[in-house]
Amino acid sequence: MSDGDGTSPHAVSTATLTSQADDDRGTGDAVDLLGLVAYTELASFGRLAGDAAHAPTLGQRLSLSRMAATMLERQHAVLDRATELGGHPETCMAAYEGMYDDFDGRTRPSTWWEGILKGYVGQGVADDFCLLAAQGLDERSRGVVVDALTVETAADRSAPVIGVAAADDPVLASRLALWGRRVVGEALGVVGSVLAERPALARLVADAMRAAEGEPGDGPSTQAWVFARLTAEHARRMDRLGLAA
Amino acid sequence: MSDGDGTSPHAVSTATLTSQADDDRGTGDAVDLLGLVAYTELASFGRLAGDAAHAPTLGQRLSLSRMAATMLERQHAVLDRATELGGHPETCMAAYEGMYDDFDGRTRPSTWWEGILKGYVGQGVADDFCLLAAQGLDERSRGVVVDALTVETAADRSAPVIGVAAADDPVLASRLALWGRRVVGEALGVVGSVLAERPALARLVADAMRAAEGEPGDGPSTQAWVFARLTAEHARRMDRLGLAA
Repeated sequence: MSDGDGTSPHAVSTATLTSQADDDRGTGDAVDLLGLVAYTELASFGRLAGDAAHAPTLGQRLSLSRMAATMLERQHAVLDRATELGGHPETCMAAYEGMYDDFDGRTRPSTWWEGILKGYVGQGVADDFCLLAAQGLDERSRGVVVDALTVETAADRSAPVIGVAAADDPVLASRLALWGRRVVGEALGVVGSVLAERPALARLVADAMRAAEGEPGDGPSTQAWVFARLTAEHARRMDRLGLAA
Repeated sequence: MSDGDGTSPHAVSTATLTSQADDDRGTGDAVDLLGLVAYTELASFGRLAGDAAHAPTLGQRLSLSRMAATMLERQHAVLDRATELGGHPETCMAAYEGMYDDFDGRTRPSTWWEGILKGYVGQGVADDFCLLAAQGLDERSRGVVVDALTVETAADRSAPVIGVAAADDPVLASRLALWGRRVVGEALGVVGSVLAERPALARLVADAMRAAEGEPGDGPSTQAWVFARLTAEHARRMDRLGLAA
């Protein structure tokens, strides 16, 4: 399942995995990342369903409920791929159980808008991190993750609503900008923890960085490189809402 | 869209709708019921997603989340049919907004099991009521409602879990039996209110009763007939769990 045949144009990052031990490690690392993606989708489902329950209008309630359901549709292919690689759907997610609890505790939205923006920012960072790490995967696993995370996403679809509301109300816009900075800070904290606690993910991200930047000399640490990429994507995302990052 | 052509073997209940005014009334009544079905699916989605968030294990959380998503899949065809009949998806649901709030307030589960049983009992009664009323619809609308409500349902799939737990624990079984009686009582209360407040639904149910029992002489009132049918189905449902109804 690895790109050991070297025929893939995207195989750079894993072409060095030649021994059986390296292959096994690559497969285990892939299952680890697939588990993170699947767990994140489940968490997004729960968050969006919760936001839906408190939506101010029936139309928003319906729309957020459907976004939540989309999160679970995205998850199927990811868990199928984990199973193909010898993983178990629940076990590969179980490693991450509760990983967003601390983040959620630190970012309790005080308004419905804050909840929506939290989803947009938090899920944006989580998806971008998984997409970065996926660059270290075998080609098929990478394809599954990229497809799952780049279909038109819930976060994208809720964004225009925030943008419109913020454009009409400068006080709301400035509060949401502040809130967005707080949420992204906490989200990066989660990324830091997960990199420290899950060596598989740290390896995948290091592979991705090598593939993107070449062999590191005096370059940034992996974590600094990841944070720079995630922060840049976050700034673009806030720009699309017309909010200061 | 009505069964006015009389070719359907199931057209008994609407074959009497011959004038334009009656046709219009039939269409309006159908949109009313389709709205109730769609709103009930949305409410079930929210309830199941909430239960999922508090599930004791990751496996149950995943399974309940998927059941919730199924509720929204069931809803699509129902809203499409309402649109075909000239209704609007949100407007036809809006009439029922908040209809379960009082029921929810009176049946707050004190344990996770009570929440699951509440869903099984409450959704069972709601589905059975909608299926009964659907017997008064034009053939196509009836087909859409029956298909949506008789696909393997979330409630059915969560039932074995309750049955197994209750079989292992007589104290739990007796508490859940008591709880089931309370929930079904409140659910029948909702049915009574909706029959009193929505003439369209009362008409559909009266049509369904005529189709099933012939023209009423000294027979039961529509509400008594509905309650008897719903109570009988509820008793069967509790039997399947090994709980006293």
